[in-house]
Amino acid sequence: MSRFWSELARGLSPYVPGEQPQIPGLIKLNTNESPFGPSPKAIEAIRAAAADTLRLYPDPQATRLREVLAAYHNVAPEQIFVGNGSDEVLAHAFAALLKQSDPLLFPDVTYSFYPVYCRLLGIDHTTVPLDAEMRVRVDDYLGRTGPVILANPNAPTGIALPRTEIARLVSSRPEAAVVIDEAYVDFGADSAIPLIRDHPHLLVVHTMSKSRALAGLRVGYAIGDAELIQGLTRVKDSFNSYPLGRPAQAGAIASIEDDAHFQQARAAIMRNRDDLTAALVRLGFDVLPSSANFVFARHPDRSGQSLAAALRERAVLVRHFTASRIADYLRITIGSEAELARLTAALREVLAQNS
Amino acid sequence: MSRFWSELARGLSPYVPGEQPQIPGLIKLNTNESPFGPSPKAIEAIRAAAADTLRLYPDPQATRLREVLAAYHNVAPEQIFVGNGSDEVLAHAFAALLKQSDPLLFPDVTYSFYPVYCRLLGIDHTTVPLDAEMRVRVDDYLGRTGPVILANPNAPTGIALPRTEIARLVSSRPEAAVVIDEAYVDFGADSAIPLIRDHPHLLVVHTMSKSRALAGLRVGYAIGDAELIQGLTRVKDSFNSYPLGRPAQAGAIASIEDDAHFQQARAAIMRNRDDLTAALVRLGFDVLPSSANFVFARHPDRSGQSLAAALRERAVLVRHFTASRIADYLRITIGSEAELARLTAALREVLAQNS
Repeated sequence: MSRFWSELARGLSPYVPGEQPQIPGLIKLNTNESPFGPSPKAIEAIRAAAADTLRLYPDPQATRLREVLAAYHNVAPEQIFVGNGSDEVLAHAFAALLKQSDPLLFPDVTYSFYPVYCRLLGIDHTTVPLDAEMRVRVDDYLGRTGPVILANPNAPTGIALPRTEIARLVSSRPEAAVVIDEAYVDFGADSAIPLIRDHPHLLVVHTMSKSRALAGLRVGYAIGDAELIQGLTRVKDSFNSYPLGRPAQAGAIASIEDDAHFQQARAAIMRNRDDLTAALVRLGFDVLPSSANFVFARHPDRSGQSLAAALRERAVLVRHFTASRIADYLRITIGSEAELARLTAALREVLAQNS
Repeated sequence: MSRFWSELARGLSPYVPGEQPQIPGLIKLNTNESPFGPSPKAIEAIRAAAADTLRLYPDPQATRLREVLAAYHNVAPEQIFVGNGSDEVLAHAFAALLKQSDPLLFPDVTYSFYPVYCRLLGIDHTTVPLDAEMRVRVDDYLGRTGPVILANPNAPTGIALPRTEIARLVSSRPEAAVVIDEAYVDFGADSAIPLIRDHPHLLVVHTMSKSRALAGLRVGYAIGDAELIQGLTRVKDSFNSYPLGRPAQAGAIASIEDDAHFQQARAAIMRNRDDLTAALVRLGFDVLPSSANFVFARHPDRSGQSLAAALRERAVLVRHFTASRIADYLRITIGSEAELARLTAALREVLAQNS
C-alpha cells in the first residue's frame, strides 16, 4: 500500500488471470485459448492494416465492424457495442447497467472477474449458490429483484442453460438489466440473442478470444437494445474514445466474414471435447457436462491442487482454483488432439504413482 | 436516457473526440496526428505479430515492452505502466491516484477529458485559471493542497512550462500525487521524467499516438515510482487484464527501438511548426508559442467558428472548441509541408472574402 493511492485503489482485490509463462514446449491448457489459429483472412487483414495509416486514429465508433457484426447476428448496428476484449465490455456493462440500488445477483461459482468489477465500481452484490450438481437454477433468482449477470455456459463449470431457461429468467425481472456473458456459447450452447427483440433489458456479451482464436488481438462485443448500447457508449466515451486500434478492427471484421473457418474450428473443438471427456472418465474422473471449450473435472482420489502441480512438473498447464467449493476440480482447456494425448498420458502416469 | 441505465451512466458528460470523417482528399489537421508514418520497423513487427500466435493471450504485464521503455527512459521496468492509449492510462491514474478527499486541481483551459474522468469516477475538482497570456502559473497552485494534473505542453494552447517550474509544483505538495501528461512533450518541451527519482508522488504520462505516429495502434504509458505504478496496476487488473494485444506490444517495442526515425520525424514537425507559425502571423493571426505538434491561433477579425467552417468547406479540417475562453481560437495540427500549404492557401482565400 502506498500513501499516494486512492481509497479506491487500496480497497481493490484484482483479478488474477491464468499464467502466461514463456516456456517452450509447454502444453498450455490453462486459459481456454483455441488450439487452432485464427482465420487466415483475419491474419491477412491485420497485416494490411499494418501500414502508414497507423498514424491516424481508428474509427472511434468502429462503424464497419459494428455493421458486419450486426449483419452476422441479424440485428441493427445501433445494437452492437465493441470493446478491447469482452472483459472491457463487461466492465462498461457493470458501470452502465448493473450498478443499481438493488444488489447484483450472480452464482457463487462463476467467472471470478464479476466480484472484482463490483469492488472497482462500488456495486453491492449477492451470490446465489449453484445446486448440488453445480448447475444454475433459475428458480433461485425468481423471488428476488435487481439486475443479474450469468455466464452461459457458466465458467468454470462449462454447464449451459437452455434458451427457455434464460427466457424465464429475463421475463421474471422486466425492471432490471440482465447480462448474459456468452464467452463460450459457440461450443454448443443456445445463444440468448434471439430474446433481445422482446426484452429491451437483455444484454448479451461475446468475445473473439475463444471460438475465433483471437485472444491476442483483444476484441469483444455486446448486443442489446439500442438504448442499452447507448448507456455503454456513454461510459466508454467517458473512459477511452478509441478502444480498438486499426489492426483489431480489421482483423475482427475479416474473422466474422470467414464463417467457414469458424464453423470448422468449433466443430473440431467439440469433437476433441467429447474425446477428452471419454478419456478422463476412463481415468476415473467425474467430468461435468461441458458446452464450452474446456472441461471441469475432479478425481475422487486426488486433490485438484496436487494434480495441477504434478501436471505442471510434466510441462502440462491446467487451471486450478482455490475457492473451497471448486478446489477439487481442474479446468482443462480443449487442446489439439496431440496436446490432449500428452495430457492424458501425463495424467495416467500421475495417477499410477502412490495410489 | 433509459430506465435501465445506472445513475452513474445518466450523470456522465462523455468526451467528444475530433471528427474522423472518411472523406478522401481531406486535409485532416484536427486530431494532432503525425503527417509522417510510423517507423517501418514498427509496421514490420506488427505484420510479424499477425500470425497463428494470435490464438494466445498477450503477456498481461507487457514485460518486454516495459523493459524496452525502461531502458529508453533510464528507469526500472517496475516504474513503467502501459495501457490502451494514454487516455486509458490517464483514466487509471485518475482512479488510482487522483481520487482523493481534496479536490483535484487542473487549469480551466486544458485537455477536455480531465473533467470527464472526474465525472465518471466521482472526483471533485477545482479549475485554476490560466493567466491572461494563456499560461499555467505555478504560483496559483502553491497555496492549495491536493493532487494536480497538468498537461505539459498544455492542450490546446501548446504552451510548455520549463522543468524548473514543474519541479517547483511537485516539491510544493509532497503529500499528494502530481500527474504530468506529456502527450506532446517530444516536440520541444522539457520532460519531467528526471524529477521522478526524487519525487515518489510524480507520475508522467506519455503516448505513442503523436510523436511516434501510432494513433491507430493504441499505446500509452506512465512512468513513476514503483509504488505509484502498482496502484495503477491494481486498477487495471480490476478492469481488464490484457489491455494491449500482441500487435500493439510488438509495434510499440519496435517503435521505441527505432530512435533514428523518431528523431527525424519530430525534427521535421518542429520545422513545419516554425514555418506555419510564420505563415499564420503573416496572415494576421495571433499564434501562441507552441511546443507541441499543433498551434493555437486566433484572428482579430474572424471568429474561430466561422474560420473552422470556411476551412471545412474547402476540405481542410481543424479543431475548434466552443468553451468561451477559447472560442476565438483554432487548433491546427502540424501537417506535412503540402498540407500546410493547402491550409495557408485556404486561409488566405477565406480572409480575402468579405473583409
